[in-house]
Amino acid sequence: MRFIVADWGTTRFRGYLIENETILDQISSDEGVSTLRKGQHRDIFLKHCGPWLAAEPDAPVMLVGMAGSREGWVEAPYASCPAGPAEIAQALVPVELANGRRGHVIPGLFCEPAPGASDVMRGEETLALGAGVADGLICAAGTHPKWILMRDGRIERFATFMTGEMYALLREHSMIGRPATEPSDPRGFDMGLDAAERNRGASGVGLLHLLFGARAAVVSGHMASTLLAPYLSGLLTGDEINGALSQFGRPSSVTVLADRARADLYAHALARHGVTAVSKNPQQALIAGLARIVRHHALG
Amino acid sequence: MRFIVADWGTTRFRGYLIENETILDQISSDEGVSTLRKGQHRDIFLKHCGPWLAAEPDAPVMLVGMAGSREGWVEAPYASCPAGPAEIAQALVPVELANGRRGHVIPGLFCEPAPGASDVMRGEETLALGAGVADGLICAAGTHPKWILMRDGRIERFATFMTGEMYALLREHSMIGRPATEPSDPRGFDMGLDAAERNRGASGVGLLHLLFGARAAVVSGHMASTLLAPYLSGLLTGDEINGALSQFGRPSSVTVLADRARADLYAHALARHGVTAVSKNPQQALIAGLARIVRHHALG
Repeated sequence: MRFIVADWGTTRFRGYLIENETILDQISSDEGVSTLRKGQHRDIFLKHCGPWLAAEPDAPVMLVGMAGSREGWVEAPYASCPAGPAEIAQALVPVELANGRRGHVIPGLFCEPAPGASDVMRGEETLALGAGVADGLICAAGTHPKWILMRDGRIERFATFMTGEMYALLREHSMIGRPATEPSDPRGFDMGLDAAERNRGASGVGLLHLLFGARAAVVSGHMASTLLAPYLSGLLTGDEINGALSQFGRPSSVTVLADRARADLYAHALARHGVTAVSKNPQQALIAGLARIVRHHALG
Repeated sequence: MRFIVADWGTTRFRGYLIENETILDQISSDEGVSTLRKGQHRDIFLKHCGPWLAAEPDAPVMLVGMAGSREGWVEAPYASCPAGPAEIAQALVPVELANGRRGHVIPGLFCEPAPGASDVMRGEETLALGAGVADGLICAAGTHPKWILMRDGRIERFATFMTGEMYALLREHSMIGRPATEPSDPRGFDMGLDAAERNRGASGVGLLHLLFGARAAVVSGHMASTLLAPYLSGLLTGDEINGALSQFGRPSSVTVLADRARADLYAHALARHGVTAVSKNPQQALIAGLARIVRHHALG
């Protein structure tokens, strides 16, 4: 089975021609949804993927990620958890490509982590469905890491943390991250994990306090400024893991979808909690998840 | 007793001529330490306070706040907690003003909130000493709010939270605060306090998760964008209070040094914990604290 995919992120466009779970051809550009205006998406898609459309007249066309956001090609309303490939395939939103041919936008997912509370994802649902985890906990790293609980091959519920964006905010715009100097000393990461432990349990001192403490340690001469950036990364990652394990329990292992370097940091941090990290390649998970949704769509 | 004060903040310079605890004359400008280079401070000080120096040849001259920071007039090393007026008066750092006359820079304070951890303040120590609290808990609001434990008229220890700076980061630079619209609906503050309760105790879900949840609620249509800014303020304030009460216990009352509007928000948030807020004027506390330090300096 061949299919065509556009994975539209905030900052990147990635197109794939896929046979089963093998990438036959691919293209990428910096034409992410944040760089486009309404009405530009079709032309960008046809510019990159038009040759595949012509060569594969029967291949399904799937759009995943921010293509379905308010700023994307067409807004695809969030589907609700629990959701597996069947529920997502039923909620696909069609878009007109060219000459009567249609593509299908994969909807994001909504869940209610507590009564009245909200969480959303767009794109990670597809990775999660392709991670090879029928029952268990997945962590999809990124600007906004998602912890995703799988039950019987479906996404039961999930929780997002703004860890990556917070790190960037602190480094680029805050008094807290300003004293950080390069090259950074990676030992700071463990010191940050140590600090995060002070925010665990009933006597938690508060993340906003621990973040100020990083600056206080540097300006008072108690921490080298080369340690500060990894320290902030460790503190934020540790606090994310505390919150995630508090919400999802403490499984023996977590499947981590991340690049090698980030996956290694999660594995190191999770080991403190007695949890093993199983690393999976995010691109392979995306393709496998798409294949599952396409198969259900073809059946439907 | 007359004395002359320069309260040098990051963004403002404020000069006072004081008799006991009454302000006889005052001046302010936007020449905060962040706008100045090394070597400019004396000229700025003399421009604003020179006439008082001439008219009051015997008046002590005190400099408080960021005048003693690395970016200030002269770096005044942090004194250590516990510290009262006597310890601070002993740690004053002299600066040459003009014609052999000296001013004295009030040092900031360092404390070790946990083994190996750090916290610092510059300026709030003087407010705390003038708040009229011999034994009890003080909250000095601001960009980086300080919770200060007083024992026998001295500062025993304290904890800083980056609440105000975090709110500004989220509003000005983040995807989380971007959807916020004006005019804002103040009911969002209470909703943020509700959310903060989900991060209390052993089952805390994580502040980084709750922050993302604010965005998720707006983009999924579960919260009006007019509620978002007060919601973030309530969530951050609630999380600060959770951490502070966890560190300092739950007193029957807390003395809040803040402008009226901010003090009212703290009073409202503290009432949920059964804690009464006693509001004090920060400028009056500053002057009273300076008077205590000047008296000890005169004795010394």
